Amino acid sequence: MSFFTLEKTDGKARAGTLKTTHSEIQTPVFMPVGTRATVKSLSSEDLDELGPQIILGNTYHLYLRPGHELIEKVGGGLHDFMSFGKSILTDSGGYQVFSLSDLNKITEDGVWFQSHIDGSKHFISPEKSMEIQKALGSDIVMAFDDCPALPNTDEKIKEAIDRTVRWAKRCKEYNLKPHQFLFGIVQGGLSLELRKYCLEELNKLDFPGMAIGGLSVGEKNEEMVELLHEFTPLMPENKPRYLMGVGTPLDILNGVASGVDMFDCVLPTRNARNGQALTSRGPLNIKNAQFKEDTGPLDPGCSCRVCKRYSRSYIRHLFTVGEYLAGQLITFHNIHFYLNMMREVRQAIFDGRFDEYHQTFYKSYNLGWKN
Amino acid sequence: MSFFTLEKTDGKARAGTLKTTHSEIQTPVFMPVGTRATVKSLSSEDLDELGPQIILGNTYHLYLRPGHELIEKVGGGLHDFMSFGKSILTDSGGYQVFSLSDLNKITEDGVWFQSHIDGSKHFISPEKSMEIQKALGSDIVMAFDDCPALPNTDEKIKEAIDRTVRWAKRCKEYNLKPHQFLFGIVQGGLSLELRKYCLEELNKLDFPGMAIGGLSVGEKNEEMVELLHEFTPLMPENKPRYLMGVGTPLDILNGVASGVDMFDCVLPTRNARNGQALTSRGPLNIKNAQFKEDTGPLDPGCSCRVCKRYSRSYIRHLFTVGEYLAGQLITFHNIHFYLNMMREVRQAIFDGRFDEYHQTFYKSYNLGWKN
Repeated sequence: MSFFTLEKTDGKARAGTLKTTHSEIQTPVFMPVGTRATVKSLSSEDLDELGPQIILGNTYHLYLRPGHELIEKVGGGLHDFMSFGKSILTDSGGYQVFSLSDLNKITEDGVWFQSHIDGSKHFISPEKSMEIQKALGSDIVMAFDDCPALPNTDEKIKEAIDRTVRWAKRCKEYNLKPHQFLFGIVQGGLSLELRKYCLEELNKLDFPGMAIGGLSVGEKNEEMVELLHEFTPLMPENKPRYLMGVGTPLDILNGVASGVDMFDCVLPTRNARNGQALTSRGPLNIKNAQFKEDTGPLDPGCSCRVCKRYSRSYIRHLFTVGEYLAGQLITFHNIHFYLNMMREVRQAIFDGRFDEYHQTFYKSYNLGWKN
Repeated sequence: MSFFTLEKTDGKARAGTLKTTHSEIQTPVFMPVGTRATVKSLSSEDLDELGPQIILGNTYHLYLRPGHELIEKVGGGLHDFMSFGKSILTDSGGYQVFSLSDLNKITEDGVWFQSHIDGSKHFISPEKSMEIQKALGSDIVMAFDDCPALPNTDEKIKEAIDRTVRWAKRCKEYNLKPHQFLFGIVQGGLSLELRKYCLEELNKLDFPGMAIGGLSVGEKNEEMVELLHEFTPLMPENKPRYLMGVGTPLDILNGVASGVDMFDCVLPTRNARNGQALTSRGPLNIKNAQFKEDTGPLDPGCSCRVCKRYSRSYIRHLFTVGEYLAGQLITFHNIHFYLNMMREVRQAIFDGRFDEYHQTFYKSYNLGWKN
């Protein structure tokens, strides 16, 4: 059985299945982010109940604390350490090294950076990133890339692409564990030509999966959508396509519409802790006074256990007084919302009505709650 | 069927059953504290799983936020508001008014105080406390008492007792909901004579249950234990005896040994959020370096789902990086620890071996974790 099977297309949208030794992953898929060996506010029991087939862990954070050696030593890897039995994808640490750490210095060999926690000095190279991800034992490993901020000059972006390609080769040469799959990452900013150039170079390395990196990093949303619609269909048809760090429910639908198979984003978890519930008619801010005496569930259309049991009024109270339970409940709902949306998207693709689903969702999502 | 049935005694220790319209409560019982309509870090699903037959809510906090009117209006009371189907006991607000608020001023009519949240001015009288607890719809309502700090002069304590008795009469005259039971509170500091005096006065009012208030407020532990052993047996035999705000596992066993039936304390929840797990060999501080690579569960003797699934190493990591999940997991375990201890205590009383249980528990609990 191959790693990825493309099962159905509907326009550019695709439905398929990924197989790892830990789980079958039905695509399009959203991967909840479990940065520090936990999807924030959720227990592994919650994850069992919500049923994501794959989650994401962050190499940069886990390398700093508790350290990949400890995770390998006491848990034999991230799965056992956090008690999550399905698949895990780890990022390369590249993005965090560039965005979170102080004083990073890029050399051909790798990146020097200072920890955002204690200022200690560290070096991550392509080989080091592979070593960490190997110890973590994730099912999908991401190549270590150079991820420039946008906007940027074509010259700087070209430089980052060439380094990304050279680093990708070094990652490819590293011996991972037999169950691990290594994905390449296409950089190139908003330039279709540079993206195509990077893709061609990476295609030569024949990774089992390909990611689109360096988007949703400051550019306009329309620019990202336009690029995706032109670029995604150029990616290998028989390999999963992963759009890194994206995004809102509408971003994800746009990604699927362009042919993307995999997504991750901190939005449903982070926004939950800020009191934002995602619903069929758009984000709902539980802090708003209009929900003070509202006995309805977060989302009337939702079947999750939080919506079955708790009122907006109660969750608003918890949030107002600062009880962690507010974040726990909204996070559970938000992750359910994303996973449920992906199940609906997949079904719509199989039914050949993805466009209709997309439009209906878009209209409802824009209704909003400001009555 | 009567409210309280005494089923077995073993020395001074007692086992019985309380019946409310919401649940049967087997005593001795520990009541987890759900100050602001949630047992901190636990969902109502967690409570369903842990199975406490009764929890405690705080009148002072709920009065300030979200307000008892709101809880009655949107939920018909605290049970529905927080979705907890078993029994709830609410305190009177008295203790918090004296300990948490600023500038409290006691008059014969009641207490003026300023909110610890925003400094707003409020007045709680015995009638107001009853009004709030009636709106909350708790199964057990506590009389509004005057709770002086210790140490204090006998004169001041006598003054507080007389006021407590006068206020108790006013509470008794208030019409609560038919399902609600009102408990009187005995004050009197560490003086057996003053406690006896207060008890005699309150006995005239024939409350369905009696509480011991004003302990664990600064006195030495031995002083409390000594007083309890002398005083508790003097309380009405056919009524439940509730020792308010106590305590550590060892305090609770001492309380049971003196004849107390009901306990509540924030210790298992508060200490959990500070990284302290309660175990059969005493408190375990998950922050300690000795647990860094420890693959064992919080308590090897525990059957809770946290101990079945997560290692000390993992929970220590979560705590170290500041993930809420650490507090959630330790809280779940700690509440399980308390509830399980109470089940064992009850069984030991029925088996006529409470003293032996007490001694065995004491020895094991003092072993500690500093190896």
